Amino acid sequence: MKTILVINPNSNPDVTHGLAEALAPLNIAERARIECMTLAEGPFGIETMLDAESVVLPLRQLVLERTDADAFVIACYSDPGLALCREATTKPVFGIQESGLFAALQRGNRVGVIALGPKSIARHLPYIRTLGLEGRVSERPLHLSVAESEADSAYPRIEEVARELIQEDMADTLLMGCAGLARHVPKLEDALGVPVTEPTQAATTQALGAVLLA
Amino acid sequence: MKTILVINPNSNPDVTHGLAEALAPLNIAERARIECMTLAEGPFGIETMLDAESVVLPLRQLVLERTDADAFVIACYSDPGLALCREATTKPVFGIQESGLFAALQRGNRVGVIALGPKSIARHLPYIRTLGLEGRVSERPLHLSVAESEADSAYPRIEEVARELIQEDMADTLLMGCAGLARHVPKLEDALGVPVTEPTQAATTQALGAVLLA
Amino acid sequence: MKTILVINPNSNPDVTHGLAEALAPLNIAERARIECMTLAEGPFGIETMLDAESVVLPLRQLVLERTDADAFVIACYSDPGLALCREATTKPVFGIQESGLFAALQRGNRVGVIALGPKSIARHLPYIRTLGLEGRVSERPLHLSVAESEADSAYPRIEEVARELIQEDMADTLLMGCAGLARHVPKLEDALGVPVTEPTQAATTQALGAVLLA
Amino acid sequence: MKTILVINPNSNPDVTHGLAEALAPLNIAERARIECMTLAEGPFGIETMLDAESVVLPLRQLVLERTDADAFVIACYSDPGLALCREATTKPVFGIQESGLFAALQRGNRVGVIALGPKSIARHLPYIRTLGLEGRVSERPLHLSVAESEADSAYPRIEEVARELIQEDMADTLLMGCAGLARHVPKLEDALGVPVTEPTQAATTQALGAVLLA
Amino acid sequence: MKTILVINPNSNPDVTHGLAEALAPLNIAERARIECMTLAEGPFGIETMLDAESVVLPLRQLVLERTDADAFVIACYSDPGLALCREATTKPVFGIQESGLFAALQRGNRVGVIALGPKSIARHLPYIRTLGLEGRVSERPLHLSVAESEADSAYPRIEEVARELIQEDMADTLLMGCAGLARHVPKLEDALGVPVTEPTQAATTQALGAVLLA
Amino acid sequence: MKTILVINPNSNPDVTHGLAEALAPLNIAERARIECMTLAEGPFGIETMLDAESVVLPLRQLVLERTDADAFVIACYSDPGLALCREATTKPVFGIQESGLFAALQRGNRVGVIALGPKSIARHLPYIRTLGLEGRVSERPLHLSVAESEADSAYPRIEEVARELIQEDMADTLLMGCAGLARHVPKLEDALGVPVTEPTQAATTQALGAVLLA
Repeated sequence: MKTILVINPNSNPDVTHGLAEALAPLNIAERARIECMTLAEGPFGIETMLDAESVVLPLRQLVLERTDADAFVIACYSDPGLALCREATTKPVFGIQESGLFAALQRGNRVGVIALGPKSIARHLPYIRTLGLEGRVSERPLHLSVAESEADSAYPRIEEVARELIQEDMADTLLMGCAGLARHVPKLEDALGVPVTEPTQAATTQALGAVLLA
Repeated sequence: MKTILVINPNSNPDVTHGLAEALAPLNIAERARIECMTLAEGPFGIETMLDAESVVLPLRQLVLERTDADAFVIACYSDPGLALCREATTKPVFGIQESGLFAALQRGNRVGVIALGPKSIARHLPYIRTLGLEGRVSERPLHLSVAESEADSAYPRIEEVARELIQEDMADTLLMGCAGLARHVPKLEDALGVPVTEPTQAATTQALGAVLLA
Repeated sequence: MKTILVINPNSNPDVTHGLAEALAPLNIAERARIECMTLAEGPFGIETMLDAESVVLPLRQLVLERTDADAFVIACYSDPGLALCREATTKPVFGIQESGLFAALQRGNRVGVIALGPKSIARHLPYIRTLGLEGRVSERPLHLSVAESEADSAYPRIEEVARELIQEDMADTLLMGCAGLARHVPKLEDALGVPVTEPTQAATTQALGAVLLA
Repeated sequence: MKTILVINPNSNPDVTHGLAEALAPLNIAERARIECMTLAEGPFGIETMLDAESVVLPLRQLVLERTDADAFVIACYSDPGLALCREATTKPVFGIQESGLFAALQRGNRVGVIALGPKSIARHLPYIRTLGLEGRVSERPLHLSVAESEADSAYPRIEEVARELIQEDMADTLLMGCAGLARHVPKLEDALGVPVTEPTQAATTQALGAVLLA
Repeated sequence: MKTILVINPNSNPDVTHGLAEALAPLNIAERARIECMTLAEGPFGIETMLDAESVVLPLRQLVLERTDADAFVIACYSDPGLALCREATTKPVFGIQESGLFAALQRGNRVGVIALGPKSIARHLPYIRTLGLEGRVSERPLHLSVAESEADSAYPRIEEVARELIQEDMADTLLMGCAGLARHVPKLEDALGVPVTEPTQAATTQALGAVLLA
Repeated sequence: MKTILVINPNSNPDVTHGLAEALAPLNIAERARIECMTLAEGPFGIETMLDAESVVLPLRQLVLERTDADAFVIACYSDPGLALCREATTKPVFGIQESGLFAALQRGNRVGVIALGPKSIARHLPYIRTLGLEGRVSERPLHLSVAESEADSAYPRIEEVARELIQEDMADTLLMGCAGLARHVPKLEDALGVPVTEPTQAATTQALGAVLLA
C-alpha cells in the first residue's frame, strides 16, 4: 500500500477537508491511499508572496520527516517550495499549478486560467514564463477572495470569466487557478462544453501514477 | 467500471503485448480497466511520416466506434492523429509524446529525450516548438532501429546516450523517446539516479486520472 | 517548359477556377505553366480538421503520380499534407499559409491575418507557433463562411476587420487567411494603404522561382 | 514591362556581374526585366557594421530616385537599409537575408546557414531574433573572406561546413550566408541531397512575384 | 576626473538643456562629470526612421573624436547607432531604450512603456524582440507629439495611459518612452505608487557605474 | 547622505570584506554611502537551493528593519528573496544575477557567464528563462568551489572557460557568475579584449543611480 501525502500549506482545516473530498475518487483501495493534511506552520490563508514563502522550509521539513509517504502534492496554486522539495528528496513531488497547466494543455491548445485577482495573475506570469508556456496561457481575474470564490454564489461570476477566456482569449481548455474550486468544475463543464481541469486533482493524478508505477 | 483504450497504431501484436505489460501496474481492479489493442489498419512499424499519417483516419474511426471506451491513449511517440481525435470526441485522448514530455518536466527542469535516430529527432523538433517547450528539451539519437532498441543488448548504448544528455545538455529528467522501451527504465534510473519517464505510462496515468474523476 | 501544379484540395471546381484567375499573372509563356486542378477525392469545402485530414494521403498520392510537374502548391490555408508531401518528393512543395505569412512579413513588421472565424484562428495558432512566428502575427475573424467571404458583399466587413488589425494590433502588412479572397485584395490595398498578401499568389511565386532556377 | 532593380551595395562591379549571372534565369522577357547595378557610394566590400551602415542612406536615396523601378532587391546579406527603404516607398523592397531565410524554411524545418566567419554570425544573430526565427536557424563559419569563398577552391570547405550543419545541427535545408556564392549551389545540392537556397535568387523571386502581380 | 558624454542627437538645444537638468543629480563632483551636448548634424527632432538614420554616422564620428570622454549615452529613445558605436570603440556606450527597459525590469516584472504614438510603438516592437523582452513589455500611445508630451498640460493624459498599462496590461513598473519626459516622473510615481523609470537617467546611471569602476 | 545596504547573505565576513573592496569605487563621499554587511542568519556559504532558501525570510526581515537604508543589494548570485523583498518595500532592491545579466547585455549581444559548476548552471537556467533572456545567455562551468574560484590560482581556468564562451558560444560580453570574483576582472578584460561585468558592481551601480535620483 502506497501513500500519497497531499499537503494543504495553509492551516485552515476546512480547506483540507475540501481537498479530501475533491480527491476521493483518486483513492484506490489497497493500492494507493491519499492522505490530506494541514500544514501546522502555515498561515490561515496564502494570499501574498510572504504567505507562500513562509511555508517553504516547513514543507521541505515535512517532506523529509514523512518517510512513510511515497509521493507528495503541494496543494497551493503558488507551488511554494516545489523546487526545494524536489532537491531534498528523490521521491516525486508535484505542484498544483504546474500539474494543472500541463494537464489542461492535454485537453486543448490554449488554456484559460480562472484566477482570483490581478495580484495572483501577476505572481503567476513569471512562473508561466519559467515553465515555457507564455504563448499558450491566458488568465483572467474573478476579483474574489479565496473564501468568496469557494461559495456556490461565486458560480455565475466564474462562468462569466470562463466565457471571456473562451471568447476573447481563444481558450479551448480551462483551469481553476486556485486550490478550493473543485465544486464548480462539473457545472462549468456542463455549461460551456469545454474541459475544465481542477489542479489538485491534476497533481494527485500524477502522484497516483508515480506510486502505482514505482 | 471505466475502460481506457490504449491503441498501438502499428499492427505488430508483440508491441501491444509489451504495452500491456508496461501498463499493468495502472490497472485498477473494478474501477478502471486498461485495454491494449492493435490497430488492424496500421503498418507493421511506424518509422516514417507516411507510416504515421496512414493511421490518422483509422485512429479517428476507432475512437468514434469504441463508444464503450472512456478515454484513449495513442501509443506511438509521433502522437499521430491526436488533434484530430480530440476534435472528434469530447472524451479525453492522450498522446504519449505530449504526456511524456509534460510528465518528465514534473520531475526536473530540463528533459533529455533518448530518441531512436536523427530522423525521429527531426520529426519531434517542430512538435516540441508547437508545444512551447523548445527551451526545455534536448534530444540525442541512439542510432538504433525500434527492434534493436527494445532488446536487452541495447541497454549499454541507452545508458551512454542518457549520460550525454545529463552531462552535455544539463538534463535532470529523462524520457524514453519511443513506445517500447519500458524494460530499460528501472535499470537506467538505478544507474543514473535521475527520474526516467516511460511515455505510454505517462499518457495512461493521465487517462486513469481522467476516468476516475469523470 | 516547366509545370507548376496548383492543387485545390476541395472538389469545388469554382474554387479552382478562381485560383486560375488569381494566378494568371504568374503564368510565364514558354517558361513556366501554371496548372490549377481540383482534387477529386477532396470534400466540397475544407472547414474542419477532418476535412483537411481527409486530403492528406490523396495529396501525397497526386504528388507522386504527377511526375510531369516540377513544383506543387497546396492551395488550402490549412497547409494539409505539406510536411508529408515534402517527405515524399525532392521537388519543391509549397503551402499557402506558410508562404503567405513569410511573404507578408517581407512587406512589414507585423502581419494581420483576416481569418474566416474563431475556429480557423484556433487551428492556425499552433501552426504559427510551429513556424516560430507567434510574436509577429495577429488574427481576427470575419465570422463569415467561405462562400460568404468570397462574395463582393463581404468587402465592407473585410475592410472593417483589416482596420482593427492595423489599429488595435499594430499590423502594418495584411494577409488573406483563406484561399478564395483574391478579388478583395486590390480594393483593400487602395483603401488602407498597406500591402495585402494573397496566399495562393505568395506560394505560387515561390514555385515560379523554384522552377525557373532549377 | 516591369523593372526589378537589384542593387549591389558594394562598389565592386565583378560582384554585380556575378549577381546578373545568378539571376539571369529569373529574367522574363517582355514582362519583367532584372537590372543589376553597383552602388557608386558603396565600399569595395561590406565586411563590417560600418561598411553596411555607410550604404544605408545612399540606398534610400537610390530607391527614391529610381522612380522607373517597380521593385528593389538589396543584394547584401546584412540587409542594410531594408527597414528604412521600406519606410521611404510603398514599392516592395526585399533583403536577401530575410528572403533567403524565409525561402529556405519553405524547403525544410531547420535551416543551416553557411556563413563567412564568426563576426558575420555575430551580426546575424540579433537580426534572426528580430525575425523570430532563433529556434529554427543554425550558422557555422567557413573562416574565409568574401573573395576566397567565391573561388572554386572554396568548395570542399563549403561542403564540409554544410555536412556539419546537417549532421550536428539537424539542418535539412541550407542557405548560402553571403551574396556571391551562387556557383557552389548546384554542386552542393548534388553532393548532399538537401535543398540549398541562394539568397539573391530568393529575394529576386519575391520581387518577380510582386511586379507580375502588381 | 571622468567624463560622461550625453549626446542629444537632435539639434534642439532646449532638449539638451532638459537633459542636463534631469541628469544633474548624477553629477559627482570631482569624480565624474556629465556633459550634455547637442549633435550639430541632427535634425531638429527625431520622429521618423530617416531622422534616426541620419544621425548614425555623425554619432559614430563624434564617439571617435571625443577621445576625452570615458563613456557615452545616446539620448534618443530609438537608440540610433548604438551597435555601430559599440563596434567603433571599446569604451562603454549606452542607449536609453535598452538601458531604460533593463532598469525598469529591475523594479518589477512587467514594464509598461508610455509611448508617443502608434508609429513609435511600431518602431520599438522589433527592437524589443531583438532584446529578447517581448514577453515582458507592453506599450501604449499618448497620441501626442514630442513637444506636446513635454508640456505640463500633458500630465493628465500621461497618467491616464499609465493607469491603462497597469490595469489592462498588468504592468507593475513603468518607463517613459521618450527622452524629454523627466518632469512628469515624480508626479506619476506619487499618483500611481509604482516605480517610473526615466530612460536617460537609466542610461547615465550605467555610464556612471562604468566610469567609476574603470 | 543616502545609504546603500549591500547584504552578503552568507555569514562569512571575508566575503563581505571582499565585497566592500570591490564596491569601494562606487562610494560617493557625502552623497551615497555603501555599507556592506554580513547576514548573521546566513549559512557560511550558499551552495545549494536550501542554503539560498534559508536566507529569504531573514533578508526580508532585514530590509524591513533597516529603515535607514535607501536601497538594497542582495549580494548572492542566486538572487535569493529578491521578489519577496520587492513585495515588502517600495525602496529599490537589486539582485546581482539580474543586474549582472542586464549590465553585461549593455556591453554586447550575447553574454557568457562563468559559472562555478554544473549545479549552479542548472539553478540559473530556469531563472534566465523567467527573465526572458534564454536566447542571449550561455553558461560554462569552472568546476571549482567558491573558495577555489576566489584564489589567484583560479585565474588560468577562468580565462580558459572565458575563451570557450567567446569562441564556442559566440559570447562578446562576459559575466562573473558568482559574487566573489572581482579580482579576476581586470586581468580577464586585458587578456581577452571583451568587457567583463562583475555582478555586485552591476547591482550596486543600479542602487547608486536610484538613491542619487530619489
